[in-house]
Amino acid sequence: MTIERFIDNASTGWMQGGGEQSDIVMSTRIRLARNIQGIKFPTMFTQEDAMEVRRRVREALREEVHEWIDMNEISALERQVLVEKHIISRDLASKKEIGSVALSEDQKQSILINEEDHLRIQCIYPGLQLERAYEQAELVDHYLEGPLKFAFDGEFGYLTSCPSNTGTGMRASVMMHLPALTITRQMERVIPAISRLGIVVRGSYGEGSEAPGNIYQISNQITLGKTEHEILQELKHIVMRLISHERRSRDMLLQQSRIALENKLFRSLGTITYARLLPSTEAAKCLSDVRLGIDLGLIQDVDMSILNELMVFMQPAFLQQYADAELNADQRDMFRAKLFRERLQMKK
Amino acid sequence: MTIERFIDNASTGWMQGGGEQSDIVMSTRIRLARNIQGIKFPTMFTQEDAMEVRRRVREALREEVHEWIDMNEISALERQVLVEKHIISRDLASKKEIGSVALSEDQKQSILINEEDHLRIQCIYPGLQLERAYEQAELVDHYLEGPLKFAFDGEFGYLTSCPSNTGTGMRASVMMHLPALTITRQMERVIPAISRLGIVVRGSYGEGSEAPGNIYQISNQITLGKTEHEILQELKHIVMRLISHERRSRDMLLQQSRIALENKLFRSLGTITYARLLPSTEAAKCLSDVRLGIDLGLIQDVDMSILNELMVFMQPAFLQQYADAELNADQRDMFRAKLFRERLQMKK
Repeated sequence: MTIERFIDNASTGWMQGGGEQSDIVMSTRIRLARNIQGIKFPTMFTQEDAMEVRRRVREALREEVHEWIDMNEISALERQVLVEKHIISRDLASKKEIGSVALSEDQKQSILINEEDHLRIQCIYPGLQLERAYEQAELVDHYLEGPLKFAFDGEFGYLTSCPSNTGTGMRASVMMHLPALTITRQMERVIPAISRLGIVVRGSYGEGSEAPGNIYQISNQITLGKTEHEILQELKHIVMRLISHERRSRDMLLQQSRIALENKLFRSLGTITYARLLPSTEAAKCLSDVRLGIDLGLIQDVDMSILNELMVFMQPAFLQQYADAELNADQRDMFRAKLFRERLQMKK
Repeated sequence: MTIERFIDNASTGWMQGGGEQSDIVMSTRIRLARNIQGIKFPTMFTQEDAMEVRRRVREALREEVHEWIDMNEISALERQVLVEKHIISRDLASKKEIGSVALSEDQKQSILINEEDHLRIQCIYPGLQLERAYEQAELVDHYLEGPLKFAFDGEFGYLTSCPSNTGTGMRASVMMHLPALTITRQMERVIPAISRLGIVVRGSYGEGSEAPGNIYQISNQITLGKTEHEILQELKHIVMRLISHERRSRDMLLQQSRIALENKLFRSLGTITYARLLPSTEAAKCLSDVRLGIDLGLIQDVDMSILNELMVFMQPAFLQQYADAELNADQRDMFRAKLFRERLQMKK
């Protein structure tokens, strides 16, 4: 596949950048867990129940949905691509027989069907846009609430498969790029401190504090006993503090070791521009460096949106789609290098 | 100093490339040691003797010389620049009070005066040009032999300060780029084998087998009991064998691990294009990689003559001339990176 065609096909709403604080906050995601009254929850339900959920949601959505995809209608590679785009979860991709996803045209809104709950309404926006993302999710929620009648308890709120989601059913998360706090080893102290406030910090693609590319996902732990707006306010407060902390660390790095920092960041640009084999960990590290270089105004002729794309497209399923072939790990390193080179040459 | 002006001033004959086998042989040098009859040799002579040598050589050369430089007329930095250009020896640069050098316009021919011997006639040509360099040195030798009358013994030949030069007084040396033999660790076996044939192999800028940038100087050990042409023939024979050995190793590397090799070579191009701090050992390694990449046809948009220049200009005195300032080691790393970046951007 040519690079131009690949980029056209692969790019999606939240990756095009924009939004507040977008030099540090890459994206904001709101996810609402909902279940339909009178149908057993997914932990207990039968194949027939699942089909009933699918039918009921599809009927409720009618013309409001741009694209509806049943997991068993697409290939394993296509499912994996949706996971890598952050549009569906790994869990949904694995529920091949019962899972579906409904997508809006710009792919910023999606509804995951028959994942851990009957419905997971999800909105992803670029930058820091907690309120906007929540408003959108709420619109979808209200639209579906009439025809579907969600399981709701006067005392507990929305009922969910896992008690940790019960209440608002809301998980709000913000993906942040925190290289200066990481380089200066402050994240080691920050993560446990934030955890005590009921906020979870994890590496973007996994559990634990290891964060390839210095990207962290910050999300609320607590869903019960607070309103959605209180939860969003608290999360935003923490995120804003992290942002100012990160900015101070960047200034300090620039003042104390500008030339060493420039050297590190530009060398990473050299690596992604010239390498012929690019392992994923190194690629993530280099993308983080180049992003920081752009943010600091040191690197000027690379567009930030290219970095958002590469961060997503460097993953295994996208690379295989780009190569039009199954790839082993060595071959992926080769195609990852090719993708980076060709994309950087495109410039815009 | 602007990069354009610096390059104009600094570039010299042998660095402009060309000559046979120039993908592997960077330069050929012939050096003839001569002393004037009736004046004590430099190991024993007085300041007056030295001035007498200077006067006699200058008189003999008359209009044949383009430039005459007394070591005490130029600054320590300028002396160091001549050393880094391979035009004078460190030894001559240290003989501030008595040393001189006479230069041809293209700087391919030079006569070092009052170094270890009264005269050292030196010719440097790009590529493998043993015969041509020797013919030029012989012309100068014959021109001076009439007026100066060199110390010569019917049995031993030309007499020199150090007995190891007595006989022909000739040292022929060839600077070779042998990355494939080095990468595949064959140089470790080659060096002792060649030494047994009376040929010396050393790293380009020092004694011993350590060779920054995979550049080796191959020269004759024996100056006595053979004619100049026999010595040149033997040296050429060894050099040609090394060349074919290097070429076979390059083919093998390409066949066995093309992508890994490309990755290594292009990453080095990325480093010298983007680094902001470039230590000399890394710079030499990268230049070697890029040179190999050009030779193998993998790297196409970098001109080989740029590499010849950078190999010379990356040294301390040149960098200080370029920066117009004294530089410590850290500052040199910074200006070396700047020089490489700016020179590569000039392209031609």
